[in-house]
Formats: sequence, C-alpha cells, structure tokens
Amino acid sequence: MPIYTPSPPAALLTSSSPIIPITIAPVIMASGKIMAAGRNQLLLPPPIRQFKYSKRVVLKSILDREDKGLAIAGQRVVVGGWVNSRKERAEDDDAPFPTPPAQADDVLVQYVPFLRPISSVPVVVGGGARATAKDKHVLVYLLINDGSCSTNLQLVMDSSMFIPGNVVTVGNSILVEGVLRRTWTRRKRVVELIVEKTLHVGAVDLKTYPLAKQQLSLLSLRDHPHLRPRSITIGYVARIRSNLTCASHAFFNDLGIIHVHMPVITSIATGAQSRRFQVTTLLDASDQVQVDLEAFKAAVQEKRSRIDELGRGGNNREALVAAEQDLERSMELVRVLEEQRKTASVYVGVVKLSDDFFGRAVYLSTSAGLHLESYACALSGVYTIGPVFQADDDESQSAKKLAEMWMVEVELAFAELEDVMNCAEDLLHSLCYSLLATAGSDLKFASKHIDRNCIKRLQSITSRAFDRITYSEALHILNQAKDRSFLAEAVWGTHLSEEHESYLANDFFENPVIVYEFPKEIKPFYVRVNANAKTVSAFDIIAPKVGVLVRGSQKEERLDVISKRIEEVGLPHEQYDWYMDLCRHGSVKRSGFSLELEKMVVMATGITDAKDAIPFPRAHGDAKL
Amino acid sequence: MPIYTPSPPAALLTSSSPIIPITIAPVIMASGKIMAAGRNQLLLPPPIRQFKYSKRVVLKSILDREDKGLAIAGQRVVVGGWVNSRKERAEDDDAPFPTPPAQADDVLVQYVPFLRPISSVPVVVGGGARATAKDKHVLVYLLINDGSCSTNLQLVMDSSMFIPGNVVTVGNSILVEGVLRRTWTRRKRVVELIVEKTLHVGAVDLKTYPLAKQQLSLLSLRDHPHLRPRSITIGYVARIRSNLTCASHAFFNDLGIIHVHMPVITSIATGAQSRRFQVTTLLDASDQVQVDLEAFKAAVQEKRSRIDELGRGGNNREALVAAEQDLERSMELVRVLEEQRKTASVYVGVVKLSDDFFGRAVYLSTSAGLHLESYACALSGVYTIGPVFQADDDESQSAKKLAEMWMVEVELAFAELEDVMNCAEDLLHSLCYSLLATAGSDLKFASKHIDRNCIKRLQSITSRAFDRITYSEALHILNQAKDRSFLAEAVWGTHLSEEHESYLANDFFENPVIVYEFPKEIKPFYVRVNANAKTVSAFDIIAPKVGVLVRGSQKEERLDVISKRIEEVGLPHEQYDWYMDLCRHGSVKRSGFSLELEKMVVMATGITDAKDAIPFPRAHGDAKL
Repeated sequence: MPIYTPSPPAALLTSSSPIIPITIAPVIMASGKIMAAGRNQLLLPPPIRQFKYSKRVVLKSILDREDKGLAIAGQRVVVGGWVNSRKERAEDDDAPFPTPPAQADDVLVQYVPFLRPISSVPVVVGGGARATAKDKHVLVYLLINDGSCSTNLQLVMDSSMFIPGNVVTVGNSILVEGVLRRTWTRRKRVVELIVEKTLHVGAVDLKTYPLAKQQLSLLSLRDHPHLRPRSITIGYVARIRSNLTCASHAFFNDLGIIHVHMPVITSIATGAQSRRFQVTTLLDASDQVQVDLEAFKAAVQEKRSRIDELGRGGNNREALVAAEQDLERSMELVRVLEEQRKTASVYVGVVKLSDDFFGRAVYLSTSAGLHLESYACALSGVYTIGPVFQADDDESQSAKKLAEMWMVEVELAFAELEDVMNCAEDLLHSLCYSLLATAGSDLKFASKHIDRNCIKRLQSITSRAFDRITYSEALHILNQAKDRSFLAEAVWGTHLSEEHESYLANDFFENPVIVYEFPKEIKPFYVRVNANAKTVSAFDIIAPKVGVLVRGSQKEERLDVISKRIEEVGLPHEQYDWYMDLCRHGSVKRSGFSLELEKMVVMATGITDAKDAIPFPRAHGDAKL
Repeated sequence: MPIYTPSPPAALLTSSSPIIPITIAPVIMASGKIMAAGRNQLLLPPPIRQFKYSKRVVLKSILDREDKGLAIAGQRVVVGGWVNSRKERAEDDDAPFPTPPAQADDVLVQYVPFLRPISSVPVVVGGGARATAKDKHVLVYLLINDGSCSTNLQLVMDSSMFIPGNVVTVGNSILVEGVLRRTWTRRKRVVELIVEKTLHVGAVDLKTYPLAKQQLSLLSLRDHPHLRPRSITIGYVARIRSNLTCASHAFFNDLGIIHVHMPVITSIATGAQSRRFQVTTLLDASDQVQVDLEAFKAAVQEKRSRIDELGRGGNNREALVAAEQDLERSMELVRVLEEQRKTASVYVGVVKLSDDFFGRAVYLSTSAGLHLESYACALSGVYTIGPVFQADDDESQSAKKLAEMWMVEVELAFAELEDVMNCAEDLLHSLCYSLLATAGSDLKFASKHIDRNCIKRLQSITSRAFDRITYSEALHILNQAKDRSFLAEAVWGTHLSEEHESYLANDFFENPVIVYEFPKEIKPFYVRVNANAKTVSAFDIIAPKVGVLVRGSQKEERLDVISKRIEEVGLPHEQYDWYMDLCRHGSVKRSGFSLELEKMVVMATGITDAKDAIPFPRAHGDAKL
C-alpha cells in the first residue's frame, strides 16, 4: 500500500508566531478510498480554494470531503466561525502521546504540536467564564462552526494568543489563520487547525447569551429566532431546506417549465376555504391614536381652565362638581388612550375600504393555484415557489398550522391527471436524490442525532415507484386493517384522518403512496369531474411522517361544468368570472399540484415540528421578529 | 458541400387522413453551420423528444434551434398552443410555386402540400369571425404559440378538418398532430406543420375576448392580467424573468451560499422608511356587515308586522304614519348596508390589536435585510429571493412604484464592502451572460420589436468590469458635465436624482457603475461608519435604463457604534434590541446587497414599465385579481 508522508509547509518552520509546530510524524497511512481515487497525485493535493467573497476557507470545503480533510493536512488556511464548545488542556512535553481520556473525544490530540516546554498544569475542561492565568501556557481547544456543514472544526490555540482576561468561549465569533494538521483519531475527526494568528474575536455577553447553555431544546430555541440558526440542528435544517429549494428550481428548469412569481396580495378568493389575512393601511395605529389623544388632551386642558374659572367665581358649586367629574372622566379616557397606544391597540371609527390603499379589500393569498392556471393557459408549463397564508386560529390545530408557509406549485397545460402524478413523483424522487447525493454528511449527522430513519426514508423514496390506489381502494385497505383500530372509521365521502394517512404511508406501504379519484364533495370546485359525476380527478401523495405532502388535480376545463360547480358549492359567480375566462377563451386540459415545502423539510430532516422547518415561523399568537 | 436529401417518413405516405403530402422536393441544402456540427450524422436527425408530462412536443424544441427546425423536417409531432393569427388561402394545384405576396410573409408557402385538386377561390386574409364555407376547400394558416418561445409555429390545415361553423381563430387553443415540413423561405420561418389530425380545439368567445384585437398596448393588456401572458411580449418578459430567477439561484448555489426563506409577515420595523401594510384579521368584512345586516333585516321584518297590526286596528293614523316612516328609514339603511357589503366597506367599533391573530400589530416586510443578517451571523453566506412591500401612495411616484416587489438579497459574514461589490458585479455579469447564452431567440425578438439596444446592453455588461467611483467622484463628474444641465445640482449630502443617475450610467459610463462611500445621512442606520465618521460603507450599482439596481453595504458590527447610530437617527432603541444582539454576541464583519428583480427585468427585457415586469402588479389603487 502506498504511503503518504507530508512535508511541513515552509511557512510552518519559519513562523514567527509563539507556536512552533514540529514536523508531523509518524508517517500517515492514507485511506484506501483516497488512494484509489488518485494514487500518485496524492503527494501534491490541490490547495483548498478560499471562498470567493471573503478571505477565508469555508469549513465545508475542509471537513465535508470523503477523506474528511486528510489529503489537505499541512495546508495554511484562514477560517472563521462561531465557537460551539471550549476545552482546555495543559501541555506536557514529557508525554507526547498521552492516552486519550475515554469520554472526551472532543479534545483528542494524539501528539504534541508545540516544542516549547510548558510546566505541567492540571487539565481544565469546559472552563467557561474563568479566565486563563496569563503566565500559564494552556492549550485551548475550540470547536467552531460556520454554518456550512454540521461538522465542527477543532482549533488548537495557545492561551497566550488571547488578550488576557478575554475569555473566548461558546458564542464567540473567531477568525484565525493556521495550519491544518492530521489528528490521530479513532473517531470522526481527521484534521484540526493549529492556530497561528487570531484575526478577529467577537465577544459574547455570557450573562444574556441564550445559547450559552448546552443542549437547548428546539422549543426553547424558538424564543430566539435571530440566534437559533447558530445551533447545529437549525443550521442543518436550513441547509436541507436550501438544498430542497434549489433542487426544485433545477428540476423544473431542466424541463423548461417556466418560473413565475405569483402575487402575495390578492383581491380575489383563491379557492382555499381557510380564513384570510386582510392587508390594509387604514389601521395605521400610531397616527390615529396620536390625533385622538391630542384632541382629548386639549379638551382636558380646556376643562381645567373652565374649572379654574368656576372656582374663582365661587358661586356655582354644582356646576363646579359636575365639571370636576367631567374632567375626571376625560382624564381617565386620556389614560386609557395612552395605555392603548402603548399596547398598540387603536380606536377606529368607520373603516371605508374604498379609502384603503388599493381602493378595495385585499388579502394575503391562500394559494397560487388559480393565478398559476392563468399563466399555464398561456405559457403551458409554469411553476412557482412562494408564500401562502392561512389565518386558521382553531386552537387544536394551532400547534401544527403555520400561518405563513411556502409552497411549490406547478401547473401544466395539455396535461392530464396521470401526467402530473408522474411529475410530482419525479419531483419527490429528484429532491430526495439531491439530498442523498449532495447532503450526505448532514444526513449522517441527522441519523445520529435527530432521526435514525432519516437516510433510510430518503433511500426508500428514491428506490421505488410509489404505489397508486384510488380513494375507494384506500378505504378498503383501511377497513381491512385488522391489526389497527382507528378512532374514526374511514367512510366514503369524508376526508381521511391523520391516523388513516399514517397507517397507509407509515405502516401499509412504508413509502409515499398516491391516492386518486376522490369524492367530489371533499375536493375544491375547480377539480375536473369524472364521467361518473361522483368522483373528481384529484390526487394526494401521502408520505410517511407528514401525511398529505402533495395535492394535485386535473382542472375542470369545460365552461358549462365549471359554471355549474361554482353554483353547486355556493360560491359567488361574479367573483370567479375571471377564472371562467380561462375556460371561455381557448380552454385546454390542464393539471397541476402543490407541495408543502415545510412538510417536505420535516420529512427529509426528521425533525418533528414544522415551526423548526422555517426560519421565522408564524402561527396563531406568535410572530416573533 | 454535402447535400441532405430527407426521405419522407413512411407514415406520411400511408396516411389515411384527408391530407396526402407529397415527397418534398427539390433537395435541400443544409446550412453550413449544421453541417459543421455533425457532418455525416445528418441523414438521421434524432427524433424530437416530447415534453415529459404532456403528450406533445414543446414548440421551443422545434423552433428555438440553431437550424430553426431544418434538420427535423419530416418528423411527426403533436403540438399545442394558442392561435395568434389566422389566414386563409385557396389551394391552386396549377401554381405549385406561387410568387409570394411581398408583405404577407406569414402565409409564405412555397409549394403545394396537398395533392387533392381544389377549385380556385379567392385568397382570404385575416378572416376573423367569418365562417369558412363548408364545401370550399381552403387552406387555413394558423400561427400558434405555446409560451415556450417567442416564435410562432405555422400550422397548415385543410378547412374541412374543422367542424362546420366552428371558426378557429385568434385566442383558440388547439392541439394537433402532423408532420413538420420545410418551408421555402427568404425570411425567418424554416418549418411549418402540415396538420393531419386535430385532437382538441378550445373555443373562444370573440365578443368578449379582449385579446382578439391586434396589437393591444401593454397598458391595455394590464386590464386583463389573467389573459395578458398570451401576448407574445408578456410571454417573453415572463421567460426572461424566469431565466433571471433561476440563474440567480444557480449563481448562489454554485458558491455554496445557502438559500433561506425570510418572513413576509413581520412584527418589527425592517429598516426601510416607507409606509407599511398592516396584516389583520380584525376587519373581517363580510362577517361583520353580514351580522349587522341580518339584525337590520330582522328589525325591518318586525316593523312590517307592526305596521300590519296598526293598519288592521285602523284607529291610530299618526302611529301608522310614524311607523311607516321608520320602516322606510330602516329599509334605506338595509339598502346602504347591502351596498357597502358589495363594495366591501365595513363598520368597525374599537379595534384592539391584542385581539388580532398574532396578538400584536404585524406588517408586511419592507426588506429581508435585517432578518437575513441574523442568518448570516450563523450560516455565514445566505441569500433570499422573496417579496417585499411598500405602501407608498405618493401620487407622483405611484406610476413607477410597485407595492409588491421581489428582491434578491444576499448577506455574507466575514465579508467586507469590496467583497460584496465583487459579488454583486459577478451576479450581474452572470445573469446577463445567462440570458445571452440561453435566451438568444427571445432577445432577438426583443431587439426587433421592443428595444433595439437590448442585446447590446447585455453584451456591454458582460464584456467589461464596472467602473467604481466614490460618491464624491460622482458629484465631481456631474458638476463637470458641461454638455448637460440638470434640474437640481448634485450637492454633497443629498441623494443623486434620477437624471444624475441616468447621466452617469447612460451617458458617462454607458454601463453599470458602482458608486460607494456615501454620506452617513443618506444611508440607513445599519451601514458601517467609516473612520472619517462622515461617510459610510455603502455602495449602489447604477445601471443604464433603470437607475439604482443594486444597493449594498457593509453592516455595522461594533455594538457601541450601532447603539449610537440608532439613537442618532431617532429610532426606538427597544425595537432594535434583538438586532443589537447580533453585535452583542459573536459579532463579525458582514456585508450584503439587494437587487430589485423587477428593475433587472426592465433592464434586461427593454420594456419601460415595471408593471409589465411582474405577472400581477400591485400599485396604489390597483390590485387586479
């Protein structure tokens, strides 16, 4: 087997910093994988490229390699990040290869990097707020992360490199220059950085820093939405979400399907039944109250003058008492108004929506579907990735329901139900494949710390076609489920319940399953009515862990049928006249689907709550920052 | 030079349809370009792939080729689209190669495709609403478009293929099967489709179809946002916008910069000065009015009963009159309320924001910048493409200002001003290059019909680095401009005016120019203060045609300075305490920029109004659909 003996970079030997590294010995055996990849080129590994728009190397490019950085040991780099943990360890040159403590694999250093003899001091582990004594040479081990991957890089520094009294600990930012060195490790870590120069240290106020405590729960982290991405888990979720978003764009772009931005503010009902948010400039709180308040204050002033007058006159006792009572009432009102102003509540008289910014009532869109159809009836294949909103304040649901969600929505002209079923299945395959192919180390992290089925689930999705069953067949399966008793029976004409969905995807199929041909009554008016007049051309993809992940349908393209359907479900005809234009003028068969991005993130990452799947979650009573 | 003689596909010769095509003659000279690319493989051109999720071939894959479809002539395809124009022409087998009329290059057919002798009838051009007589064999030429490219495909059909009386004309959708045939053309069209089977024709109600008129202006098209994408221009803009969006994602994705979705609904001030939209569920119009209305209706009913009673009694004339007057007033009120309900205006008493959905006042985000910074201070490099909102109802600006816009926003930790200047410049280069590389035929269309400088402008941007000047240098250039008199002088400490921007980008540099180092007073509080305490580390990229296209800055990372700045500009300290956390805990140098997508679309497409750059524009008094 070939042997790889790196020479120390010249810079290391002539370094004028207080740390003088020795030549790394003994020889390092390169892993078989690496050798197979580039046998004889190994002696000159290519230098790691620094990130183009900041003068540092991104940690991912060091740690997220197949060899975990082995081939680039010896290279000089600048890295930056935030400190996730700090440990100290005295340096003892009599014991160059100390037996590593069994538990503390975070401080595994298998040979002494510093030549300077340092007097033996006790090992200090986890010394948070305590300053390191100036004159004691202590090695400080910092695990830092820059959000580019879930792995931390270990920095090895001499305590003398810090300004005395400045404790660098959890939450600090740090930018350092140093040389990558191989660690002798039985565990995951392969390289660490011997720091030669600190370029920047950003302080942390430990008294108020909420993430100073180890192992904050995801629930507690939600109280600090601006800091929580610094936790490894939220960082991991953000990267998976980014991967899914970009892979969605790539999927559609490759197909020539056109991306369109659909409106967030809309003046029409967008089909969904849920309560909507209204958008207005009429309640401009601070203005309005201020005006009223000033008027009232002036009135109070006037009343005071009048009381003074009456008091001076002294001959109308009754009037004075009445005026004083009146003044009291007015002052109480001013007090209330001032209180209201503080809590940002506001008094409004008549709100005339014709005076509003858009001259009419407008709402946040609950779905891009109808707007998207209008573009599909012109550009043929269109998709959008955008926010939708629902103001559902049902308490029982509020824990789960996000008020602001992101949806991937697709609409294809000249396409029928089966076409978009295929498209949706291919999209899911493609997204999961993208994660397996490009987010391997993040998924490994998740399998260990978040959900051990994480990778298995993705592999299962990519490895086989989804089963496709009709709604009736789904009912049959549910009613045949002898091993399972459901709270509610699955009855034709009603929505499947969560436990039904869970049984189908988690237990029966153990994979996403496509259910199609639903009863007309439980799908929206725009879904195409089948020949039997009882069912419609809709499908759901029910996925393990999250339930309905995709909703799709062929749209009703027949003018007479859509007109009848709108009447049937009791919608105001005039509000949908524009929509009927799509059937009135050059109608085509068209089909589409929507995928809830947050559910996809939950399924892919293995986390349990959609509120952790979106950077700033909005739910009933909860809109932090 | 090699010569390419296509044989007609077997299907063509045995076709049982009423149309029997002849063998195509004479031999066709392949263009030099094509021959160079694949010399001897030309005899067997690969079949065009149909679109994966609908059983048809996308027009782009026929027309948007370097050879404009030459090599695929002879292939059988199904295509669909919407009819953009219709012409008729009688078939005359005595004149197989008629001299084409000089102007009407849309009906250029250089040889007769149908063997069946047809009696000579006069040429009919542009016969819109007029039905073709049943028994006359007339060739119908339809130009159809499916939104995939700006070129139309010409369908050649025999009038007998239509159901008698069904006029297929502008606005109709159509799905047909046929064989591609080379046209003998001196102009742009190289292939046309000889239709053998119509699979679907979607009617159009010509009386109400607004796009039936030729050449509707972009302004009039805005009245029909759901139909306007069928116009070639709006379709073209949509494709360019899609290209820019996807190219942005690809640019950041390649760099490992993480995409994050920033909130649309926010409870904080997001930095921008403009008026905000409030989001509420308190003004739930229909509910509120309905309740009142029902109560009033009940009251009216009761009053009617009372009048009946009084009338039957007959002994209280006065009471009856009074009651009748009262009823009349009540009925008037019901009428008013019903009217209000129609116009969606509404009466509200006291609005308590603590009762609102989120338990506080929330707004639509005016910028993702501050939220994005919090993610940059954890994940290092982040970007977002999302909607932002401004409720600016300044009449003079309303024509230009969109209330809902999409922004590309980027924030990089450990990056300084120059880093993000480079990044923004590279992004612009990359976006323009993407258009030149992949949207060639669309740009050619635009150069001819919309803005002849369109391609030149993009080429200029990609061909050279942007000049970089300080704000002071910009003032110097403006004050030295002898050939130009400005309405307002450029004075230090004030914003550059539109004419200043226009002079710099359009006249002086004839390219985007980066202006940096602005006076503190004209940039937001979060921009990093320079050592001179007078200027801040901000930059604008001023581009031809659109003015400020990108705004960027290095953010203030020093806690004491940002705290002072917040006070200086008079913002409430407590509202920005969360933001100061970013400087309080592990602060790093960070920089970012934002690019207005609509301005980018305007610059790239050559259109003049941002309202045509977004599918459903929202502006003061205007929120259609």
